[in-house]
Amino acid sequence: MGRVTFEISVSADGYVAGPRATHDVPLGEGGERLHEWVVGLSTWRETHGMEGGEQNADADLLRESVDAAGAYVMGRRMFSGEGGPWGDEPFEGWWGDEPPFRAPVFVVTHHPREPLVKDGGTTFTFVTEGVEAAIEQARDAAGDKDVAIGGGADVARQALAAGLVDEMKLHLVPLLLGGGVRLFEELPSGPVSLEQLRVQSSPAVTHLRYRVVRPTT
Amino acid sequence: MGRVTFEISVSADGYVAGPRATHDVPLGEGGERLHEWVVGLSTWRETHGMEGGEQNADADLLRESVDAAGAYVMGRRMFSGEGGPWGDEPFEGWWGDEPPFRAPVFVVTHHPREPLVKDGGTTFTFVTEGVEAAIEQARDAAGDKDVAIGGGADVARQALAAGLVDEMKLHLVPLLLGGGVRLFEELPSGPVSLEQLRVQSSPAVTHLRYRVVRPTT
Repeated sequence: MGRVTFEISVSADGYVAGPRATHDVPLGEGGERLHEWVVGLSTWRETHGMEGGEQNADADLLRESVDAAGAYVMGRRMFSGEGGPWGDEPFEGWWGDEPPFRAPVFVVTHHPREPLVKDGGTTFTFVTEGVEAAIEQARDAAGDKDVAIGGGADVARQALAAGLVDEMKLHLVPLLLGGGVRLFEELPSGPVSLEQLRVQSSPAVTHLRYRVVRPTT
Repeated sequence: MGRVTFEISVSADGYVAGPRATHDVPLGEGGERLHEWVVGLSTWRETHGMEGGEQNADADLLRESVDAAGAYVMGRRMFSGEGGPWGDEPFEGWWGDEPPFRAPVFVVTHHPREPLVKDGGTTFTFVTEGVEAAIEQARDAAGDKDVAIGGGADVARQALAAGLVDEMKLHLVPLLLGGGVRLFEELPSGPVSLEQLRVQSSPAVTHLRYRVVRPTT
Protein backbone atom coordinates (compact mmCIF):
# COMPACT_ATOMS: atom_id res chain seq x y z
CA MET A 1 0.00 0.00 0.00
CA GLY A 2 1.24 3.49 -0.81
CA ARG A 3 1.92 6.23 1.67
CA VAL A 4 -0.24 9.23 2.50
CA THR A 5 1.89 12.26 1.79
CA PHE A 6 1.29 15.91 2.21
CA GLU A 7 3.23 18.37 0.06
CA ILE A 8 3.07 22.13 0.10
CA SER A 9 5.13 25.29 -0.43
CA VAL A 10 5.49 27.34 2.72
CA SER A 11 7.23 30.59 3.63
CA ALA A 12 10.08 30.63 6.16
CA ASP A 13 7.60 32.06 8.68
CA GLY A 14 5.10 29.26 8.11
CA TYR A 15 2.43 30.68 5.81
CA VAL A 16 0.94 28.98 2.74
CA ALA A 17 -0.80 32.17 1.56
CA GLY A 18 -0.04 35.82 2.22
CA PRO A 19 -2.03 38.51 4.03
CA ARG A 20 -5.00 40.44 2.62
CA ALA A 21 -6.26 37.79 0.19
CA THR A 22 -9.09 38.88 -2.11
CA HIS A 23 -11.07 37.27 -4.91
CA ASP A 24 -8.60 38.84 -7.37
CA VAL A 25 -5.51 38.01 -5.31
CA PRO A 26 -6.49 34.63 -3.83
CA LEU A 27 -3.00 33.78 -2.54
CA GLY A 28 -2.74 37.12 -0.73
CA GLU A 29 0.03 39.69 -0.76
CA GLY A 30 3.29 37.99 -1.75
CA GLY A 31 1.60 34.58 -1.90
CA GLU A 32 2.41 33.96 -5.57
CA ARG A 33 6.10 34.06 -4.65
CA LEU A 34 5.68 30.74 -2.84
CA HIS A 35 5.27 29.08 -6.22
CA GLU A 36 7.88 30.92 -8.25
CA TRP A 37 10.38 28.07 -7.79
CA VAL A 38 8.02 25.59 -9.44
CA VAL A 39 6.35 27.29 -12.42
CA GLY A 40 9.41 27.33 -14.69
CA LEU A 41 10.27 23.66 -14.20
CA SER A 42 9.95 21.13 -17.02
CA THR A 43 7.98 18.78 -14.76
CA TRP A 44 5.47 21.48 -13.85
CA ARG A 45 5.08 22.56 -17.48
CA GLU A 46 4.56 18.97 -18.59
CA THR A 47 1.77 18.33 -16.05
CA HIS A 48 0.17 21.56 -17.27
CA GLY A 49 0.29 20.38 -20.89
CA MET A 50 3.23 22.57 -21.93
CA GLU A 51 6.64 21.75 -23.36
CA GLY A 52 10.08 23.00 -22.37
CA GLY A 53 11.10 24.43 -19.03
CA GLU A 54 14.09 24.02 -16.77
CA GLN A 55 15.45 20.54 -16.15
CA ASN A 56 17.28 20.64 -12.86
CA ALA A 57 17.32 19.00 -9.42
CA ASP A 58 14.08 20.78 -8.45
CA ALA A 59 12.39 19.38 -11.56
CA ASP A 60 13.64 15.86 -10.72
CA LEU A 61 12.34 16.13 -7.19
CA LEU A 62 8.94 17.28 -8.42
CA ARG A 63 8.95 14.43 -10.96
CA GLU A 64 9.39 11.99 -8.08
CA SER A 65 6.24 13.29 -6.38
CA VAL A 66 4.22 13.35 -9.60
CA ASP A 67 5.23 9.78 -10.44
CA ALA A 68 4.54 8.55 -6.90
CA ALA A 69 1.01 9.98 -6.65
CA GLY A 70 -1.84 7.64 -7.58
CA ALA A 71 -4.60 9.90 -6.26
CA TYR A 72 -4.99 13.34 -4.68
CA VAL A 73 -6.99 14.79 -1.81
CA MET A 74 -7.76 18.50 -1.60
CA GLY A 75 -10.10 20.89 0.20
CA ARG A 76 -12.95 22.83 -1.37
CA ARG A 77 -10.94 26.04 -1.24
CA MET A 78 -8.14 24.53 -3.27
CA PHE A 79 -10.70 23.12 -5.70
CA SER A 80 -12.70 26.27 -6.34
CA GLY A 81 -11.68 29.01 -3.94
CA GLU A 82 -14.95 28.44 -2.07
CA GLY A 83 -14.80 29.38 1.60
CA GLY A 84 -11.68 31.52 1.22
CA PRO A 85 -11.15 34.78 3.07
CA TRP A 86 -12.77 36.51 0.08
CA GLY A 87 -16.10 34.81 0.80
CA ASP A 88 -18.03 31.80 -0.37
CA GLU A 89 -18.17 32.51 -4.07
CA PRO A 90 -16.39 29.70 -5.95
CA PHE A 91 -13.99 30.36 -8.82
CA GLU A 92 -15.47 28.78 -11.92
CA GLY A 93 -13.03 26.84 -14.02
CA TRP A 94 -10.10 27.35 -11.62
CA TRP A 95 -8.37 24.19 -12.88
CA GLY A 96 -9.37 24.54 -16.56
CA ASP A 97 -10.39 21.75 -18.93
CA GLU A 98 -7.21 19.73 -18.47
CA PRO A 99 -6.07 19.93 -14.84
CA PRO A 100 -2.47 18.99 -14.01
CA PHE A 101 -3.32 16.07 -11.69
CA ARG A 102 -4.01 13.46 -14.39
CA ALA A 103 -5.31 11.14 -11.67
CA PRO A 104 -8.38 10.82 -9.42
CA VAL A 105 -8.83 13.80 -7.09
CA PHE A 106 -11.02 13.64 -3.98
CA VAL A 107 -12.38 17.00 -2.87
CA VAL A 108 -13.44 17.40 0.77
CA THR A 109 -16.57 19.57 0.76
CA HIS A 110 -19.94 20.06 2.45
CA HIS A 111 -21.80 20.14 -0.87
CA PRO A 112 -22.67 16.84 -2.56
CA ARG A 113 -22.05 16.93 -6.29
CA GLU A 114 -21.68 14.48 -9.14
CA PRO A 115 -18.11 13.55 -10.12
CA LEU A 116 -16.55 15.91 -12.64
CA VAL A 117 -14.58 14.23 -15.43
CA LYS A 118 -11.92 16.41 -17.04
CA ASP A 119 -9.54 15.88 -19.94
CA GLY A 120 -6.15 14.27 -19.41
CA GLY A 121 -7.11 11.76 -16.72
CA THR A 122 -8.32 14.02 -13.90
CA THR A 123 -11.62 13.18 -12.23
CA PHE A 124 -12.86 15.27 -9.29
CA THR A 125 -14.94 13.25 -6.83
CA PHE A 126 -16.71 15.17 -4.06
CA VAL A 127 -16.61 13.68 -0.57
CA THR A 128 -18.94 15.03 2.10
CA GLU A 129 -17.96 12.68 4.94
CA GLY A 130 -14.72 14.46 5.87
CA VAL A 131 -10.99 14.11 5.37
CA GLU A 132 -10.68 10.54 6.64
CA ALA A 133 -13.32 9.31 4.18
CA ALA A 134 -11.64 11.20 1.33
CA ILE A 135 -8.27 9.62 2.16
CA GLU A 136 -9.88 6.19 2.36
CA GLN A 137 -11.45 6.58 -1.09
CA ALA A 138 -8.18 7.95 -2.46
CA ARG A 139 -6.31 4.92 -1.07
CA ASP A 140 -8.60 2.60 -2.99
CA ALA A 141 -8.10 4.63 -6.16
CA ALA A 142 -4.32 4.91 -5.73
CA GLY A 143 -3.65 1.18 -5.39
CA ASP A 144 0.06 0.74 -4.65
CA LYS A 145 0.82 4.40 -5.29
CA ASP A 146 0.75 7.33 -2.86
CA VAL A 147 -2.19 9.43 -1.81
CA ALA A 148 -1.01 13.04 -2.11
CA ILE A 149 -2.72 15.68 -0.01
CA GLY A 150 -2.22 18.88 -1.96
CA GLY A 151 -3.85 21.33 0.41
CA GLY A 152 -5.16 23.48 1.67
CA ALA A 153 -3.50 23.75 5.02
CA ASP A 154 -6.71 22.90 6.87
CA VAL A 155 -7.11 19.54 5.11
CA ALA A 156 -3.44 18.74 5.74
CA ARG A 157 -3.78 19.64 9.42
CA GLN A 158 -6.92 17.55 9.85
CA ALA A 159 -5.19 14.55 8.28
CA LEU A 160 -2.14 15.09 10.48
CA ALA A 161 -4.24 15.40 13.64
CA ALA A 162 -6.06 12.18 12.70
CA GLY A 163 -2.71 10.35 12.46
CA LEU A 164 -3.19 9.65 8.76
CA VAL A 165 -0.10 11.34 7.28
CA ASP A 166 2.99 9.18 6.66
CA GLU A 167 5.23 11.81 5.07
CA MET A 168 5.39 15.59 4.80
CA LYS A 169 7.21 17.30 1.95
CA LEU A 170 7.68 20.99 2.69
CA HIS A 171 9.11 23.35 0.11
CA LEU A 172 10.50 26.12 2.30
CA VAL A 173 10.67 29.39 0.38
CA PRO A 174 13.09 32.16 1.50
CA LEU A 175 10.42 34.73 2.25
CA LEU A 176 8.59 36.08 5.29
CA LEU A 177 4.95 36.58 4.32
CA GLY A 178 4.26 38.24 7.67
CA GLY A 179 0.63 37.12 7.77
CA GLY A 180 -1.98 35.14 5.87
CA VAL A 181 -2.85 31.45 6.15
CA ARG A 182 -0.65 29.43 8.49
CA LEU A 183 0.34 25.91 7.60
CA PHE A 184 0.47 24.69 11.20
CA GLU A 185 -1.84 25.44 14.07
CA GLU A 186 -2.06 23.75 17.46
CA LEU A 187 -2.13 19.97 17.50
CA PRO A 188 -4.54 18.55 20.08
CA SER A 189 -2.21 15.56 20.51
CA GLY A 190 0.78 17.64 21.62
CA PRO A 191 4.28 17.00 20.20
CA VAL A 192 4.78 14.62 17.26
CA SER A 193 8.24 13.33 16.30
CA LEU A 194 9.48 13.57 12.74
CA GLU A 195 12.31 11.79 11.01
CA GLN A 196 14.25 13.94 8.56
CA LEU A 197 14.37 11.81 5.41
CA ARG A 198 15.93 14.27 2.99
CA VAL A 199 17.00 17.89 2.73
CA GLN A 200 17.75 19.29 -0.71
CA SER A 201 18.26 22.95 -1.48
CA SER A 202 18.56 25.20 -4.50
CA PRO A 203 18.97 28.99 -4.23
CA ALA A 204 15.19 29.48 -4.51
CA VAL A 205 13.89 26.85 -2.12
CA THR A 206 14.76 24.18 0.45
CA HIS A 207 12.94 20.86 0.11
CA LEU A 208 12.38 19.10 3.43
CA ARG A 209 11.04 15.57 3.51
CA TYR A 210 9.91 14.23 6.88
CA ARG A 211 8.47 10.93 8.01
CA VAL A 212 5.79 11.30 10.68
CA VAL A 213 6.76 9.05 13.58
CA ARG A 214 3.67 7.66 15.26
CA PRO A 215 3.73 6.57 18.88
CA THR A 216 3.85 2.77 19.00
CA THR A 217 0.92 2.37 21.38
CA MET B 1 30.68 47.09 11.43
CA GLY B 2 29.39 43.63 12.26
CA ARG B 3 25.99 42.25 11.39
CA VAL B 4 22.96 41.91 13.62
CA THR B 5 22.09 38.23 13.61
CA PHE B 6 19.32 36.29 15.16
CA GLU B 7 19.81 32.60 15.88
CA ILE B 8 17.36 30.17 17.38
CA SER B 9 16.26 26.52 17.35
CA VAL B 10 12.73 26.08 16.07
CA SER B 11 10.43 23.12 15.47
CA ALA B 12 9.23 22.23 11.97
CA ASP B 13 5.87 23.77 12.91
CA GLY B 14 7.46 27.04 14.01
CA TYR B 15 7.60 26.90 17.81
CA VAL B 16 10.57 27.85 20.00
CA ALA B 17 9.00 26.34 23.13
CA GLY B 18 6.39 23.64 23.58
CA PRO B 19 2.87 23.76 25.02
CA ARG B 20 1.95 23.81 28.72
CA ALA B 21 5.12 25.48 30.03
CA THR B 22 5.42 25.68 33.81
CA HIS B 23 8.01 26.95 36.24
CA ASP B 24 9.43 23.41 36.42
CA VAL B 25 9.19 22.80 32.65
CA PRO B 26 10.01 26.26 31.30
CA LEU B 27 10.45 25.11 27.68
CA GLY B 28 7.07 23.37 27.71
CA GLU B 29 6.14 19.86 26.67
CA GLY B 30 8.75 18.57 24.21
CA GLY B 31 10.59 21.91 24.24
CA GLU B 32 13.89 20.45 25.49
CA ARG B 33 14.06 18.39 22.30
CA LEU B 34 14.72 21.58 20.34
CA HIS B 35 18.15 21.71 21.94
CA GLU B 36 19.12 18.04 21.85
CA TRP B 37 21.18 18.57 18.70
CA VAL B 38 23.40 21.11 20.43
CA VAL B 39 24.09 19.91 23.97
CA GLY B 40 26.49 17.11 23.04
CA LEU B 41 28.66 19.22 20.76
CA SER B 42 32.26 20.09 21.63
CA THR B 43 31.58 23.77 20.93
CA TRP B 44 28.60 23.88 23.27
CA ARG B 45 30.49 22.03 26.00
CA GLU B 46 33.45 24.37 25.67
CA THR B 47 31.30 27.50 26.05
CA HIS B 48 29.77 25.88 29.13
CA GLY B 49 33.19 25.24 30.65
CA MET B 50 33.30 21.51 29.90
CA GLU B 51 35.70 19.39 27.88
CA GLY B 52 35.02 16.73 25.26
CA GLY B 53 31.91 16.36 23.16
CA GLU B 54 31.25 15.61 19.52
CA GLN B 55 33.33 17.33 16.87
CA ASN B 56 31.30 17.34 13.71
CA ALA B 57 29.81 19.71 11.12
CA ASP B 58 27.18 20.92 13.61
CA ALA B 59 29.94 21.77 16.10
CA ASP B 60 31.86 23.67 13.39
CA LEU B 61 28.77 25.64 12.45
CA LEU B 62 28.12 26.55 16.07
CA ARG B 63 31.78 27.52 16.43
CA GLU B 64 31.33 29.99 13.57
CA SER B 65 28.49 31.72 15.40
CA VAL B 66 30.31 31.76 18.73
CA ASP B 67 33.45 33.22 17.13
CA ALA B 68 31.46 35.83 15.19
CA ALA B 69 29.50 37.18 18.17
CA GLY B 70 30.97 40.22 19.92
CA ALA B 71 27.91 40.93 22.04
CA TYR B 72 24.47 39.43 22.71
CA VAL B 73 20.96 40.79 23.10
CA MET B 74 18.26 38.85 24.94
CA GLY B 75 14.85 39.35 26.52
CA ARG B 76 14.08 39.27 30.23
CA ARG B 77 12.44 35.87 29.88
CA MET B 78 15.59 34.37 28.42
CA PHE B 79 17.63 36.03 31.13
CA SER B 80 15.62 34.92 34.15
CA GLY B 81 12.36 33.32 33.05
CA GLU B 82 10.55 36.48 34.19
CA GLY B 83 7.30 37.12 32.35
CA GLY B 84 6.98 33.55 31.09
CA PRO B 85 3.69 31.70 30.85
CA TRP B 86 4.37 30.42 34.37
CA GLY B 87 4.14 33.94 35.79
CA ASP B 88 6.41 36.78 36.74
CA GLU B 89 8.65 35.00 39.20
CA PRO B 90 12.25 35.08 37.92
CA PHE B 91 14.52 32.04 38.05
CA GLU B 92 17.44 32.91 40.30
CA GLY B 93 20.82 31.88 38.96
CA TRP B 94 19.43 30.59 35.63
CA TRP B 95 22.79 31.15 33.90
CA GLY B 96 25.03 30.16 36.84
CA ASP B 97 28.28 31.80 37.90
CA GLU B 98 29.99 31.34 34.55
CA PRO B 99 27.47 31.84 31.73
CA PRO B 100 28.36 30.52 28.25
CA PHE B 101 28.29 33.90 26.48
CA ARG B 102 31.76 35.10 27.54
CA ALA B 103 30.91 38.51 26.09
CA PRO B 104 28.73 41.52 26.94
CA VAL B 105 25.01 40.64 27.07
CA PHE B 106 22.30 43.32 26.87
CA VAL B 107 19.02 42.31 28.49
CA VAL B 108 15.83 44.06 27.36
CA THR B 109 13.71 44.56 30.48
CA HIS B 110 11.32 46.98 32.18
CA HIS B 111 13.25 46.86 35.45
CA PRO B 112 16.37 49.04 35.81
CA ARG B 113 19.19 47.17 37.50
CA GLU B 114 22.95 47.55 37.93
CA PRO B 115 25.12 45.56 35.51
CA LEU B 116 25.86 42.03 36.66
CA VAL B 117 29.44 40.88 36.17
CA LYS B 118 29.89 37.12 35.97
CA ASP B 119 32.94 34.87 35.65
CA GLY B 120 34.41 34.03 32.26
CA GLY B 121 33.79 37.32 30.50
CA THR B 122 29.99 37.62 30.63
CA THR B 123 28.50 40.91 31.80
CA PHE B 124 24.72 41.38 31.83
CA THR B 125 23.67 44.98 31.21
CA PHE B 126 20.00 45.83 31.66
CA VAL B 127 18.41 48.09 29.06
CA THR B 128 15.00 49.64 29.77
CA GLU B 129 14.65 51.69 26.56
CA GLY B 130 13.63 48.78 24.32
CA VAL B 131 15.14 46.46 21.73
CA GLU B 132 16.54 49.16 19.45
CA ALA B 133 18.48 50.74 22.32
CA ALA B 134 19.79 47.33 23.40
CA ILE B 135 21.01 46.58 19.87
CA GLU B 136 22.64 50.01 19.66
CA GLN B 137 24.54 49.43 22.91
CA ALA B 138 25.47 45.93 21.80
CA ARG B 139 26.81 47.31 18.50
CA ASP B 140 29.15 49.62 20.42
CA ALA B 141 30.32 46.75 22.60
CA ALA B 142 30.75 44.31 19.68
CA GLY B 143 33.03 46.55 17.59
CA ASP B 144 33.66 44.78 14.29
CA LYS B 145 32.00 41.60 15.45
CA ASP B 146 28.34 40.56 15.22
CA VAL B 147 25.52 41.39 17.57
CA ALA B 148 23.75 38.09 18.22
CA ILE B 149 20.11 38.16 19.28
CA GLY B 150 19.67 34.94 21.21
CA GLY B 151 15.96 35.19 21.99
CA GLY B 152 13.33 35.01 23.04
CA ALA B 153 11.13 35.06 20.02
CA ASP B 154 9.51 38.36 21.03
CA VAL B 155 12.83 40.23 21.06
CA ALA B 156 13.78 38.70 17.70
CA ARG B 157 10.42 39.67 16.20
CA GLN B 158 10.66 43.22 17.48
CA ALA B 159 14.14 43.59 15.98
CA LEU B 160 12.92 42.11 12.69
CA ALA B 161 9.89 44.42 12.57
CA ALA B 162 12.18 47.40 13.24
CA GLY B 163 14.33 46.40 10.24
CA LEU B 164 17.38 45.82 12.43
CA VAL B 165 18.14 42.16 11.60
CA ASP B 166 20.73 41.44 8.89
CA GLU B 167 20.77 37.65 9.13
CA MET B 168 18.61 34.88 10.56
CA LYS B 169 20.06 31.52 11.48
CA LEU B 170 17.31 28.99 12.10
CA HIS B 171 18.05 25.52 13.38
CA LEU B 172 15.03 23.58 12.16
CA VAL B 173 14.41 20.53 14.34
CA PRO B 174 12.43 17.54 12.98
CA LEU B 175 9.60 17.77 15.46
CA LEU B 176 6.07 19.16 15.59
CA LEU B 177 5.57 20.76 19.00
CA GLY B 178 1.90 21.32 18.25
CA GLY B 179 1.64 24.41 20.43
CA GLY B 180 3.66 26.72 22.69
CA VAL B 181 5.58 29.86 21.78
CA ARG B 182 5.66 30.70 18.09
CA LEU B 183 8.80 32.13 16.55
CA PHE B 184 6.96 34.22 13.95
CA GLU B 185 3.80 36.26 14.31
CA GLU B 186 2.34 38.80 11.92
CA LEU B 187 4.69 41.43 10.53
CA PRO B 188 3.09 44.89 10.31
CA SER B 189 5.25 45.58 7.25
CA GLY B 190 3.83 42.69 5.21
CA PRO B 191 6.14 40.39 3.20
CA VAL B 192 9.94 40.58 3.60
CA SER B 193 12.29 38.92 1.12
CA LEU B 194 15.06 36.63 2.31
CA GLU B 195 18.15 35.40 0.54
CA GLN B 196 19.05 31.80 1.31
CA LEU B 197 22.75 31.98 2.22
CA ARG B 198 23.36 28.43 3.34
CA VAL B 199 21.51 25.22 4.07
CA GLN B 200 23.33 22.49 5.98
CA SER B 201 21.71 19.40 7.42
CA SER B 202 22.58 16.57 9.74
CA PRO B 203 20.08 13.85 10.71
CA ALA B 204 19.07 15.78 13.83
CA VAL B 205 18.65 19.29 12.44
CA THR B 206 18.66 21.51 9.35
CA HIS B 207 20.57 24.77 9.63
CA LEU B 208 19.10 27.57 7.52
CA ARG B 209 20.96 30.84 7.14
CA TYR B 210 19.05 33.73 5.57
CA ARG B 211 19.95 37.30 4.74
CA VAL B 212 17.11 39.74 5.33
CA VAL B 213 16.65 41.74 2.14
CA ARG B 214 15.53 45.27 2.94
CA PRO B 215 13.58 47.33 0.44
CA THR B 216 15.93 49.86 -1.17
CA THR B 217 13.71 52.88 -0.53
